Amino acid sequence: MKIKRAQYHVRGPVPQDVIEAVEFDLAPLESGQVLVEVLAAAINPSDVLTLTGEYGMLPPLPAIGGNEGVGRIQQVGPDVDAARIGQTVLLPVGCGTWSTHVVVPAKGLVVLPGQADPRQLAMLTVNPPTALLMLTEFVTLEPGEWVIQNAANSAVGGYLMQIARLRGWKTVNVVRRDSAVAAVRAEGGDVVLVDNEDLHKQVREATGDARIRLGIDAVGGAATDHLTRCLANGATVVNYGAMSGEPCHISPGSFVFKDITLRGFWLAKWFRTASPEQQASVFGEIVQLIATGKLKARVQATFGIDEIKQALAMAASGARAGKVLIVPTPLG
Amino acid sequence: MKIKRAQYHVRGPVPQDVIEAVEFDLAPLESGQVLVEVLAAAINPSDVLTLTGEYGMLPPLPAIGGNEGVGRIQQVGPDVDAARIGQTVLLPVGCGTWSTHVVVPAKGLVVLPGQADPRQLAMLTVNPPTALLMLTEFVTLEPGEWVIQNAANSAVGGYLMQIARLRGWKTVNVVRRDSAVAAVRAEGGDVVLVDNEDLHKQVREATGDARIRLGIDAVGGAATDHLTRCLANGATVVNYGAMSGEPCHISPGSFVFKDITLRGFWLAKWFRTASPEQQASVFGEIVQLIATGKLKARVQATFGIDEIKQALAMAASGARAGKVLIVPTPLG
Repeated sequence: MKIKRAQYHVRGPVPQDVIEAVEFDLAPLESGQVLVEVLAAAINPSDVLTLTGEYGMLPPLPAIGGNEGVGRIQQVGPDVDAARIGQTVLLPVGCGTWSTHVVVPAKGLVVLPGQADPRQLAMLTVNPPTALLMLTEFVTLEPGEWVIQNAANSAVGGYLMQIARLRGWKTVNVVRRDSAVAAVRAEGGDVVLVDNEDLHKQVREATGDARIRLGIDAVGGAATDHLTRCLANGATVVNYGAMSGEPCHISPGSFVFKDITLRGFWLAKWFRTASPEQQASVFGEIVQLIATGKLKARVQATFGIDEIKQALAMAASGARAGKVLIVPTPLG
Repeated sequence: MKIKRAQYHVRGPVPQDVIEAVEFDLAPLESGQVLVEVLAAAINPSDVLTLTGEYGMLPPLPAIGGNEGVGRIQQVGPDVDAARIGQTVLLPVGCGTWSTHVVVPAKGLVVLPGQADPRQLAMLTVNPPTALLMLTEFVTLEPGEWVIQNAANSAVGGYLMQIARLRGWKTVNVVRRDSAVAAVRAEGGDVVLVDNEDLHKQVREATGDARIRLGIDAVGGAATDHLTRCLANGATVVNYGAMSGEPCHISPGSFVFKDITLRGFWLAKWFRTASPEQQASVFGEIVQLIATGKLKARVQATFGIDEIKQALAMAASGARAGKVLIVPTPLG
């Protein structure tokens, strides 16, 4: 049997130039292994940065792309219960999810609700916990409090808005272009504004002068400063990205006179340091919310493995309205 | 009796244009008051920013300039022990220290060692506690650990270097121009480097790849990023100024991948929140170190009250080699 995987031998500034779909022969399953048919796999900004070499952690080359996805167990190797065939499972980190199939150990596989939309499940491990943890790990918000975020039309931004609403917090959502406002409003953002120099005045007006203690920044550059100026004394800014391609700018007056703290959030580090119980609790909540349709992300387009170059070109472009997914076989 | 004070009625971008020496009639002392002859008063960057209106806290106008200084009790009002005449005292915050004399309540005045150099004592309340607290309030350093600071040739920079050395910590000192290197080295800096893009490589080499957990930034702009890149994972950057006039730039990679925290330090806030015991402990240590000559700052020049405009012009210029002081009457 042949399987297809999206492989790259070098990193480079244009991700779609270095990756391609390659056919592999499937070796017989070893003891304890299962063959998982990939149902859907996400393309995240961190995947793009891994291909360009800008990410904080890089796999040895050659490598298969993709870090999250879901699949269905299709075959079991020796010593694996055949009753597991048909289970929907989370693809383990590091297996290279941009593939038609992956071979992984059966042990430790997380089983997911089979009736849920695999496209939504395919996005569960990276963006939803990022949103949830940024909302809860840095500042203990009281019911009814406001949070402000930029890049609000990103996948993390959408999850953050939905989780905040489920937890009883209100969101100010900042986007970079007028054309993004409507979608964010439709997704449930309490206040949606386009970034500008006077953001802090507009936020004050829109929130009735709320004391905002948590700001979440994925843009960098002057946008970090604009966001910071909307915050109350003693507040925390959590940065998790640099969509502007620029370093964060923050006026020293904000740190010094307003006692603002700037932190970063990296899910990979949380995975290394959080206890298994913490991880189970976070993912338990997220799977439940996704399976019941309470938490979802917009999907811009889906592509097969053969279309990996088009998929990456779209994922790397700034003006998307949703996530790009790899769906190797048309879903029923 | 006439006294002279440096007064301003408006704020403006050029401090020396808005302030001038003005003569006042001295009213008879009231019960509990003393007349203090000012021996020496400092001009700090925060004073300059107060005159330009850029500081985080601004006094009502008209105002007398100056926030720190020392004086000698010259006359006592009713109900004050005449034995206090001749005592060297710290001028209380808010009394306007750029004056030949101030009238203040005797109660609560801090008495200082009379034999110490009043020029050095005049600088004790702002810069030395700033240096000491930035070294101790954010990261608990072990003996032998390294700290990195920029603006190392500033007054705070000099105190920081001296306090670090007294406490058994080593310093990497970054300056912005070659001409500043020699003085910082003479003052006891373990490593002295001129800021540049490759600072992190030079620091690694100079410190034998030390794990630096505390960085202190008073420059902002790209200098903040250069300093941050010298730090170990999980380190803290403390900003207390923006000598470059630019916002701090920090690459999101530093926050996200290296878990760097950026904080600000403002002494005025510490004064509002520290307990009287903490304050007494910090100032007790500093007075002792200054009186015994273990802690000192370079003085660029001293000026009388009539020369307040020249004094401020020099204080506001970037290329000083020491502090500018107001010394109303030539010291013996």
